[in-house]
Amino acid sequence: MRPRIVIIGAGFGGLFTARKLAKQDVEIIIIDRNNYHTFTPLIYQVATCGLDVEDVAYPVRKIFAEHDNVFFLLGNVEGVTPDANLVTVRTNGNTRDIEYDYLIVAAGSETNYFGNANIKQHAFGLKTLEDAVLLRNHILRMVEKADWAEDETRLKALTTIVVVGGGPTGLETAGAMYELYNNILRSEYNHLKTTPVRVILVELQEYLLSPYPPRLRESARTQLEQIGVEVVTGTGVAHVEEGSVHLNNGEVIASHTLVWATGVKASPLAQLFDVELARGGRLPVERTMQVSGLGNVYAVGDIAYIEDEDGNPYPQLIPVAQQQAKLLVNNVVRRIKGQPEESFTYFDKGSMATIGRNHAVAWVFNRVQLTGFVAWISWLALHLLTLMGFRNRLVVLINWIWNYLVYDRAARVILDLRGEEEEEQVLPAAPEAATGD
Amino acid sequence: MRPRIVIIGAGFGGLFTARKLAKQDVEIIIIDRNNYHTFTPLIYQVATCGLDVEDVAYPVRKIFAEHDNVFFLLGNVEGVTPDANLVTVRTNGNTRDIEYDYLIVAAGSETNYFGNANIKQHAFGLKTLEDAVLLRNHILRMVEKADWAEDETRLKALTTIVVVGGGPTGLETAGAMYELYNNILRSEYNHLKTTPVRVILVELQEYLLSPYPPRLRESARTQLEQIGVEVVTGTGVAHVEEGSVHLNNGEVIASHTLVWATGVKASPLAQLFDVELARGGRLPVERTMQVSGLGNVYAVGDIAYIEDEDGNPYPQLIPVAQQQAKLLVNNVVRRIKGQPEESFTYFDKGSMATIGRNHAVAWVFNRVQLTGFVAWISWLALHLLTLMGFRNRLVVLINWIWNYLVYDRAARVILDLRGEEEEEQVLPAAPEAATGD
Repeated sequence: MRPRIVIIGAGFGGLFTARKLAKQDVEIIIIDRNNYHTFTPLIYQVATCGLDVEDVAYPVRKIFAEHDNVFFLLGNVEGVTPDANLVTVRTNGNTRDIEYDYLIVAAGSETNYFGNANIKQHAFGLKTLEDAVLLRNHILRMVEKADWAEDETRLKALTTIVVVGGGPTGLETAGAMYELYNNILRSEYNHLKTTPVRVILVELQEYLLSPYPPRLRESARTQLEQIGVEVVTGTGVAHVEEGSVHLNNGEVIASHTLVWATGVKASPLAQLFDVELARGGRLPVERTMQVSGLGNVYAVGDIAYIEDEDGNPYPQLIPVAQQQAKLLVNNVVRRIKGQPEESFTYFDKGSMATIGRNHAVAWVFNRVQLTGFVAWISWLALHLLTLMGFRNRLVVLINWIWNYLVYDRAARVILDLRGEEEEEQVLPAAPEAATGD
Repeated sequence: MRPRIVIIGAGFGGLFTARKLAKQDVEIIIIDRNNYHTFTPLIYQVATCGLDVEDVAYPVRKIFAEHDNVFFLLGNVEGVTPDANLVTVRTNGNTRDIEYDYLIVAAGSETNYFGNANIKQHAFGLKTLEDAVLLRNHILRMVEKADWAEDETRLKALTTIVVVGGGPTGLETAGAMYELYNNILRSEYNHLKTTPVRVILVELQEYLLSPYPPRLRESARTQLEQIGVEVVTGTGVAHVEEGSVHLNNGEVIASHTLVWATGVKASPLAQLFDVELARGGRLPVERTMQVSGLGNVYAVGDIAYIEDEDGNPYPQLIPVAQQQAKLLVNNVVRRIKGQPEESFTYFDKGSMATIGRNHAVAWVFNRVQLTGFVAWISWLALHLLTLMGFRNRLVVLINWIWNYLVYDRAARVILDLRGEEEEEQVLPAAPEAATGD
């Protein structure tokens, strides 16, 4: 009997693991709650009408169509019993136990509201394709409302967007939102033509892009402000009320749209294991990628907590997940063969963040610092090349060229599957502790 | 003061009217519950994973971006007061009264369940973009379930699709469903490889495509059967139960998917007027396109009932709506100028229906009869040319070429905005009269 390896999650960590393992003489079951892999770096472009939903999603089954040893199960993992080597999956209303020889946990992360129920209830996250569609629906509704607003104050509140978080997602979203509103939407809304739309980026630290060198941090801020985004640093969001966002510094922003891009925490799936979780709710893993204390359970990607040789945790980034997946597969194969396992080290190729049309920053190999058009083109090229599937690449490329040349965003569709159009206030006055975290 | 013309609906009738009227010295307000115009002839391709949602939707505001005299209001019309020249619109939770000089009702049609609440509750319609996404979600879930089904009987029921309606929509959907399942999905589902998927087309009359000449009716049937679709004519659906569709002829088909494409009835908006409705709930209109008895209210498209010189009602087709819109605009302009209005006559350029890869029928000018590849290419070309927006045309073309050459459908995304994944049965046992019609 070839060993059965169950992989929880078809994000970058799980998918890289599965693709490498598929070539081995093993049976693989991939479990995910979506039938597609999401290309998360471009989710914000779906939210800002630049790309279609289907452009950044790729069917998991298609990836493994040629591999008879890979099986896919659509469902939510509800329990794990390491003693019995069992995973319990809720799938289409039924519960199913799946046995494994090795379990690989790649359940990723989710938006971190830092336990603030008020913000969680009112803010828009930007981690999933559903998040993107809901945010797109919302901002398109807000401009529709604004165009018919009775007074200027209300119009301004409806067209003011607050984005929280000075990391790449925050920058990218703020820039793309500003361009969507001011380059495209405004010209089509009779009453918005004379009112500039505001996009405000809020970051708790004194600077944006904290892991980047000072010159790039400064450049990112300057480029954002050149585009038109207002940048507020050194303060956070205290709470949210109907039509207003209250900052820690006392400022109150009249706004109906709060995008929360401050960071992530591990998927709650980590809590199914009887181990003490590390910072951010992550599973503590050995340098072999084994979950500490659980012999045949491995973890990879955002859900795995592992420190470098200086005791600093590795960041929750796609390249980290990719390199972990490579080592993990190597280790599982070595283990099956009875060979000793190896330790994880991360080779950092650098990082980049796009800000808008012709605007970006890139830190290549943590040595070369690029800004502006060169960084922007590099960002586009890298993301196009790493996107999965030739058709998706082609369609994304056409959309990008189209958006760039014509100053258009075609995907301006309010897709209402749950009858949400009748909600009057998207940021209603709500009790503080309405939902748990 | 230039006259204000309010148009209800941004479908083909409303949109053609608005585009022609926009060039006149009038003020136009278009009201629609969606912010986009839907290219309805290609909705079935969204439902069968061939096209992206955004490919067949076009923002209404973009169409009129250059026209300062055209306004758009996103909302549902809830009341009409012809005596006061008022339309009452529910928009984002508020109610707003809009005054008009002329009202043009272009609210279109909806799926006709012929008053059968049991079928309405369980069947999937195919009239809106939401319909398409919900059906796409459903069929993708059914194959996921089928792949893990415990027994062959259940597997077969989960992969059997019943399409009701022998008109173009029924044919197109049945053909595209069969090809989606058997050409694409099956190869990726380990347990489906040995089980052919069934698609059954049911039509109450003895033949398909009733308005077509006998040779094309026969050809349509033959071509469907060549593809692999089972065609059952001369019977309808009696009722639906959990996992089964009961036909009038006593046959019971084990299936979890019923697509209802039997025809349409007028939008219930017609009932807001104090006039006796014509067949199919349509507004009776004079040959000038005025609603009978209402001086300054016109109707156009599927919601308008008008007979030809032989007393036969014009069919609910896009070309009819287009030609009506042209006459209607002409008449409104003549009326504003104090000139007499003209009467509607329809020039029938023919009709066509696609069946699948290389398969179609076309009846050009109701004289030339085309079948197979020639008809299919004609269908593709016509629909590509009439699709709105260059980007959409380009992306649709790429998708079609891709799907044709690679035997793929890229848009296989279960997009779950309302937490529907936990529904166990999509066709549950339900009381007969659960919902009114």
